[in-house]
Amino acid sequence: MELSDRQKKIVEIVKENGPITGENIADFLNLTRATLRPDLAILTMAGYLEARPRVGYFYTGKTGTELLTEKIKKIMVHEYVSIPIVVNESVSVYDAITTMFLEDVGTLFVVDDKGFLTGVLSRKDLLRASIGQQKLSAIPVHIIMTRMPNIAVCRKEDPLFQVAKLLIDRQIDGVPVVRDKASGLEVIGRITKTTITKAFVELVTDSDQHL
Amino acid sequence: MELSDRQKKIVEIVKENGPITGENIADFLNLTRATLRPDLAILTMAGYLEARPRVGYFYTGKTGTELLTEKIKKIMVHEYVSIPIVVNESVSVYDAITTMFLEDVGTLFVVDDKGFLTGVLSRKDLLRASIGQQKLSAIPVHIIMTRMPNIAVCRKEDPLFQVAKLLIDRQIDGVPVVRDKASGLEVIGRITKTTITKAFVELVTDSDQHL
Repeated sequence: MELSDRQKKIVEIVKENGPITGENIADFLNLTRATLRPDLAILTMAGYLEARPRVGYFYTGKTGTELLTEKIKKIMVHEYVSIPIVVNESVSVYDAITTMFLEDVGTLFVVDDKGFLTGVLSRKDLLRASIGQQKLSAIPVHIIMTRMPNIAVCRKEDPLFQVAKLLIDRQIDGVPVVRDKASGLEVIGRITKTTITKAFVELVTDSDQHL
Repeated sequence: MELSDRQKKIVEIVKENGPITGENIADFLNLTRATLRPDLAILTMAGYLEARPRVGYFYTGKTGTELLTEKIKKIMVHEYVSIPIVVNESVSVYDAITTMFLEDVGTLFVVDDKGFLTGVLSRKDLLRASIGQQKLSAIPVHIIMTRMPNIAVCRKEDPLFQVAKLLIDRQIDGVPVVRDKASGLEVIGRITKTTITKAFVELVTDSDQHL
């Protein structure tokens, strides 16, 4: 929603002078209260201003962008979670690379014999190992993986933007979505930079789903 | 901006019956034209409806989310472009992998002796080459790279969401930002899934920069 110049001026006046009555805002602008009524109604309904009876208008502190992005904050991991591809910690680096190509993913999760998360393998980890001198079919992945407890994880009910922030802050391509069990973390999904890129695209293209 | 139940009903009526006059909308709802005036003003100013003199109200086809995401559509590549890392097409796969680690990027761009774009190397391309039987220091990158004209590119003045869509549609991690020259494409930047993930995070966290 684009504000008109007059609406922007009103927000500025309330920001500086609030709480302020409609009459006083009208005085600032040399307009009548009646002229301003639709603008004040719009600014209040859109969340920029708050009106309190007998007191006047307050600035809510919410900018246009904030109001827009409150919607983004409500996107949850479970809406975008993909299937996780897991390998046992005893498989070789060669087999892990093969799995990565077969499944066409950039991140593998490593689990122990009970199926609990023990590590993460990125393309970068596998590429680093592959330029070493050792035979890739002779190295088990647990030698080169990033291991617990140094693994960033997320849960189904986390907001997606927090996972996006985690990917950027930790400089990683993906995280496992986990479920907490008494004796470890069960891997139930994955969120990657591809997921976030899809979510970004859908912000723009899937806009006919809500009114 | 949350619409009231009555405003939602008005949008539905106009969607089904538009163009429709204010009086006719009022009839549908058993209300007076005067009662509806503020709602119609709000819906028109917020972009849901369009009013044409002597004709009536039209539904613009813009939903709440569409109106919100028009802002996202205005984010341009030049606001987020990163420095490109380029290698000459004669360097070895081994040296390209080393460059990728030194520069800590996931995509390298390959240029000819005149500096024009000829190819792209992803971590996936290099990983595929590295599990082959050949000596990595003996293979020049032009053998394994994705080459022109099969390369997706973007330009500084493109909307960022279109590049995000390109990354998803083509299943690639990054694209070069190019400038058109008479005899080729000059590489002036890069946009990757990391860029898009950063932009997604900033939609939520940098919300105090605009009104």
